[in-house]
Amino acid sequence: MSSPQKTALVISAHSADFVWRAGGAITAHVKQGWKVRIICLSYGERGESAKLWRVPNMTMDRVKDTRQREAQAAADILGAEIEFWDLEDYPLRISDDTLFRLVDTYRTLQPEFVLSHSEHDPYNFDHPLAMRAAQEARILAQAEGHNPGQKILGAPPVYAFEPHQTEQCQWQPNTFLDITDVWKLKRQAIECMAGQEHLWDYYTRVALQRGVQAKRNIGITAKRHIEYAEAYMRLTPLVVEQL
Amino acid sequence: MSSPQKTALVISAHSADFVWRAGGAITAHVKQGWKVRIICLSYGERGESAKLWRVPNMTMDRVKDTRQREAQAAADILGAEIEFWDLEDYPLRISDDTLFRLVDTYRTLQPEFVLSHSEHDPYNFDHPLAMRAAQEARILAQAEGHNPGQKILGAPPVYAFEPHQTEQCQWQPNTFLDITDVWKLKRQAIECMAGQEHLWDYYTRVALQRGVQAKRNIGITAKRHIEYAEAYMRLTPLVVEQL
Amino acid sequence: MSSPQKTALVISAHSADFVWRAGGAITAHVKQGWKVRIICLSYGERGESAKLWRVPNMTMDRVKDTRQREAQAAADILGAEIEFWDLEDYPLRISDDTLFRLVDTYRTLQPEFVLSHSEHDPYNFDHPLAMRAAQEARILAQAEGHNPGQKILGAPPVYAFEPHQTEQCQWQPNTFLDITDVWKLKRQAIECMAGQEHLWDYYTRVALQRGVQAKRNIGITAKRHIEYAEAYMRLTPLVVEQL
Amino acid sequence: MSSPQKTALVISAHSADFVWRAGGAITAHVKQGWKVRIICLSYGERGESAKLWRVPNMTMDRVKDTRQREAQAAADILGAEIEFWDLEDYPLRISDDTLFRLVDTYRTLQPEFVLSHSEHDPYNFDHPLAMRAAQEARILAQAEGHNPGQKILGAPPVYAFEPHQTEQCQWQPNTFLDITDVWKLKRQAIECMAGQEHLWDYYTRVALQRGVQAKRNIGITAKRHIEYAEAYMRLTPLVVEQL
Amino acid sequence: MSSPQKTALVISAHSADFVWRAGGAITAHVKQGWKVRIICLSYGERGESAKLWRVPNMTMDRVKDTRQREAQAAADILGAEIEFWDLEDYPLRISDDTLFRLVDTYRTLQPEFVLSHSEHDPYNFDHPLAMRAAQEARILAQAEGHNPGQKILGAPPVYAFEPHQTEQCQWQPNTFLDITDVWKLKRQAIECMAGQEHLWDYYTRVALQRGVQAKRNIGITAKRHIEYAEAYMRLTPLVVEQL
Amino acid sequence: MSSPQKTALVISAHSADFVWRAGGAITAHVKQGWKVRIICLSYGERGESAKLWRVPNMTMDRVKDTRQREAQAAADILGAEIEFWDLEDYPLRISDDTLFRLVDTYRTLQPEFVLSHSEHDPYNFDHPLAMRAAQEARILAQAEGHNPGQKILGAPPVYAFEPHQTEQCQWQPNTFLDITDVWKLKRQAIECMAGQEHLWDYYTRVALQRGVQAKRNIGITAKRHIEYAEAYMRLTPLVVEQL
Repeated sequence: MSSPQKTALVISAHSADFVWRAGGAITAHVKQGWKVRIICLSYGERGESAKLWRVPNMTMDRVKDTRQREAQAAADILGAEIEFWDLEDYPLRISDDTLFRLVDTYRTLQPEFVLSHSEHDPYNFDHPLAMRAAQEARILAQAEGHNPGQKILGAPPVYAFEPHQTEQCQWQPNTFLDITDVWKLKRQAIECMAGQEHLWDYYTRVALQRGVQAKRNIGITAKRHIEYAEAYMRLTPLVVEQL
Repeated sequence: MSSPQKTALVISAHSADFVWRAGGAITAHVKQGWKVRIICLSYGERGESAKLWRVPNMTMDRVKDTRQREAQAAADILGAEIEFWDLEDYPLRISDDTLFRLVDTYRTLQPEFVLSHSEHDPYNFDHPLAMRAAQEARILAQAEGHNPGQKILGAPPVYAFEPHQTEQCQWQPNTFLDITDVWKLKRQAIECMAGQEHLWDYYTRVALQRGVQAKRNIGITAKRHIEYAEAYMRLTPLVVEQL
Repeated sequence: MSSPQKTALVISAHSADFVWRAGGAITAHVKQGWKVRIICLSYGERGESAKLWRVPNMTMDRVKDTRQREAQAAADILGAEIEFWDLEDYPLRISDDTLFRLVDTYRTLQPEFVLSHSEHDPYNFDHPLAMRAAQEARILAQAEGHNPGQKILGAPPVYAFEPHQTEQCQWQPNTFLDITDVWKLKRQAIECMAGQEHLWDYYTRVALQRGVQAKRNIGITAKRHIEYAEAYMRLTPLVVEQL
Repeated sequence: MSSPQKTALVISAHSADFVWRAGGAITAHVKQGWKVRIICLSYGERGESAKLWRVPNMTMDRVKDTRQREAQAAADILGAEIEFWDLEDYPLRISDDTLFRLVDTYRTLQPEFVLSHSEHDPYNFDHPLAMRAAQEARILAQAEGHNPGQKILGAPPVYAFEPHQTEQCQWQPNTFLDITDVWKLKRQAIECMAGQEHLWDYYTRVALQRGVQAKRNIGITAKRHIEYAEAYMRLTPLVVEQL
Repeated sequence: MSSPQKTALVISAHSADFVWRAGGAITAHVKQGWKVRIICLSYGERGESAKLWRVPNMTMDRVKDTRQREAQAAADILGAEIEFWDLEDYPLRISDDTLFRLVDTYRTLQPEFVLSHSEHDPYNFDHPLAMRAAQEARILAQAEGHNPGQKILGAPPVYAFEPHQTEQCQWQPNTFLDITDVWKLKRQAIECMAGQEHLWDYYTRVALQRGVQAKRNIGITAKRHIEYAEAYMRLTPLVVEQL
Repeated sequence: MSSPQKTALVISAHSADFVWRAGGAITAHVKQGWKVRIICLSYGERGESAKLWRVPNMTMDRVKDTRQREAQAAADILGAEIEFWDLEDYPLRISDDTLFRLVDTYRTLQPEFVLSHSEHDPYNFDHPLAMRAAQEARILAQAEGHNPGQKILGAPPVYAFEPHQTEQCQWQPNTFLDITDVWKLKRQAIECMAGQEHLWDYYTRVALQRGVQAKRNIGITAKRHIEYAEAYMRLTPLVVEQL
């Protein structure tokens, strides 16, 4: 009898964040047989679609539609499920109803880990809010008295993926994920984001830098070759049987 | 063909620190087939032998001798190698010669990880100094131009074990080690420390509290039973292939 | 002519928090002739009543009722007044009306100090929210233009009592309260919490550890015997006439 | 053809904050030909008008009216525009409508920089909220999809002016502004605040202390004479062509 | 039978520091019957005697002599004992011999508390070094094995007095001492420092600002009048029997 | 009459650090007519010359000689003066004599600013030590009583240039320098470092990332084009006449 498929949850404030910041983790786990679900809280239609808005006669619906198609294409390449909750952005607002919907997601999916944004970002208020909701919903999903009878959630670790200007965001990576083997897929997913072409090479360079640093952190004498990596800030302690 | 035995290094400012703070990790890894070497930089003869000094006509030599026998007995129970460098305590001082001796140890032992004290401790200046030496020696051991021709060191992770008053020491645990299976041995090793009997129950309670917390961090729904744990602050990032 | 009775205010997110975290302070001050009022913002009915929810056919009303009876019994043992505001938990939400009700409490009670939760807690979002309300209401109660004519509040110090995993909560104790003489009462109050028996020994060990630390902070040469203590993080400066 | 007039924006939680904390910056830039607009989110009618409330038969309307006249007089002396949004204080609350009104202000004014409160203040919850709104509105004003067609905002630096008890507010000055030449005007503006006379000398001393510190930071060998200064915490990086 | 006289220890890097930063505490405790001993590690002859060095034909001996006479006069006014250890400044260096001399002082004096500099100061490296020595010597003085037979030290609290630019020094006051009643004496002591006349009013303003803040922290409704205060950062927890 | 040539000082722990981390700043200021002096405290012969040590029969002298020639060539391209103090590396040690030599340099050169390493770096202990010496020597150079009669130093700002893994080093950039116009020269200087070819593209990517971030911090509406930048952490406050 096979063990059940492991799952992971990615909570993305805008529809492209998951690609730049966690595309490698998503597809690496898919490749290892996991189911990964991405929730895009908004399309990033106001704040992260500058190029589209420079097209004459652009409308909000067309922006959202374009963003959705790009994100869907990226998710398909990465092999992940994706949901679009269309909560609007700049500013993103999270009602208690949305929070409970996230709780339901946690309880249904029972993820092994959850990825979301940094807890602080002076350049972007939607990102920390998404992370806050990811954390609060996780706590509610653990409460036996919330919808009693449902299967409660365990304690999946929470990771903050990389923000745009790390040092301004009190974000310090403590976990590097080797994504060398899946880099090509991540780059393909990145290239789905036609409206943010200026970021393609930016995040390629991020992956290369993190690759060098990951290699440095296992030591130059280590045999493992790492060229591309993603960096994460794990927010919850690790429990191990071997250091 | 068998793989070579893995090794770990424990750098202890005084001769009993390794027992309270890392006894579980030491014996757990020994049980898993590792070689663990403990270096006691001093005997803690001045600052951590209060009870002995209250014995009439006590001398420095007798204090050191007693402390060495206690620590040796504890190491034997844990299954670890132990060295006594007798550098004196309160204050501990680390010369460059001592530093290079530590470098040699790193290079010869090639440990997979190293354990030492917290980086800050307003109640104890010997502890952070030991950690500083552990870190600086690790860096020197990585330098190709230090004793060229020797095998250089990789990048073993550095963990700070638990200080006495964690919150005053800027010490935040990010790694919990389950020591339930080896707790009895740790307690036996603790009981070798005849001169510090007031700490036996203190560190037993520490292990129980960390056990509860470890269990909480894997989730109450997890099947793994954890009763005793040790907490560590990992100072260097983790490089992984799965989150 | 006697001086007026001194008062203190305890703001507890859930109905058992005040017992684990401040039971010693409450009863110690009651013993010294103070009036102590506890406000339980919620019963902790969803998030901190796991054991009750495992009873077949449990209902929300029965959980709340049980929790209220347990907390009332504990308050009676400690000798404190207790109010149940039943605001619901997981998530706790504080409306401005609740805030103004807290302001009224401050103004009527005129407490010498206030106790509430840590300002940060990644495992629990209700706790920091309760502290935030405690602080904001205190500020509003100082404003001359809020309900002009009422007696305004002075500047009672605010203390954060001990969270479950201190080091993850940016909580650093700067004040230890000796509770040796009242420990028996605190333990009796703890044992009222039938639904959380797994925490009885946990918080007994906390009190013992804090006792050892308190003793260490007055010095082993001090004559005062301390066996049990509670630790607090005072958030506001102390004004003294002698250091 | 002359270059367009430069502008600056000051967001003040209560109607007197801009005087104590930024009066020198305001009038110094006015003197250099800038247009400076001050937005008073509230009159500080409840929390910062203690003296007025001690006048018999005082009413809310009279307090607000007095506060407005004082602030208007101060703004006139400083040469700045001033708006009173009358959002009420203690507690100040910022709706999304208010936020969008701030966005409109940013877009219309296109300020070169914005001044507001410290991000933290345990003694005052209105102040950090005003700063939070100043930052969030700035971000929204940069979003191409917010009211498409309007001229978007660039990236004006954000400065936190000096809170009352700096060290309790996580506020560290990284920028000193020499206000020696405009000090007389600032003091005149300060003296408009009849209701807070106890603060006149307090903030005069602040200016003198900051003057000494500014002088110290350019070096005692520097020729520039500085007697009065204002201190600011710049929150966003500086981009330069010369260090 | 009277209780023994209480004592306090002040460790000052340069010969004038104790006046500006702790003059009020010193004389307030003397007035309450304490013995206060000041140790001036250096005269501040190189780094804090600028005015003297501008006198033609000045020599090192004359600078030291002048500084000693000024500091002695100040100590006499404050009613304290003073020792000059003449260790030289800019840079101050602390040998182990000096450390042991400090240990002897602690053991002989058995102070109830110790005052020294802030732990960090980017403008002054002698100050943090003095504090470091104050802390390390205190720890050594507690060690039973250091000069066994001597009476060991208890655990006197350590306070960091106010540095020149507090916010740059990670210094946050948590204790305000009311010095209103002794202000005149402190000002007289300040005026002994003929070579640093530019600081007389600077530190008078510091005392006034801290007075306003102290008053604010006890509440405007409190009856106690406070005009002048000194601020301290207590580094070690307080142990109390009443909050 | 022309104003005197402005000068800047760069203090580099190892002989290549100045190229990767400050090459753009050096040549940009040289281009603007400044004199820039680089001090290489060591050659980085042990810890940063891995490739050279893999050459058969390599000697310490040949490593140092190669490193000196590379650094000299780079300095020539950048147009800067360079000095090699040959203090040895891994570990670097700074004696008081070296410190006084640095003081002499400050006093002779009278730099407008000084560049050195980050204050913290868990991967490299030589780097923070170099910065510490840079700061302490700067303070000593300001002391009137150090070599009285010499012209004392003013208060040149201190900048920490970019370490290898910024987030692990408590290094947060607050100043971006546009180096677009001088990038070609920096890249040429980089290519002089034959022994560290693996870093050429790493630091080219750093410059591109910082360029994107600098552009973002002036706003996408700004006309200035920035492609390459260097990031700095300014440690001392800025004193300005306009915000």
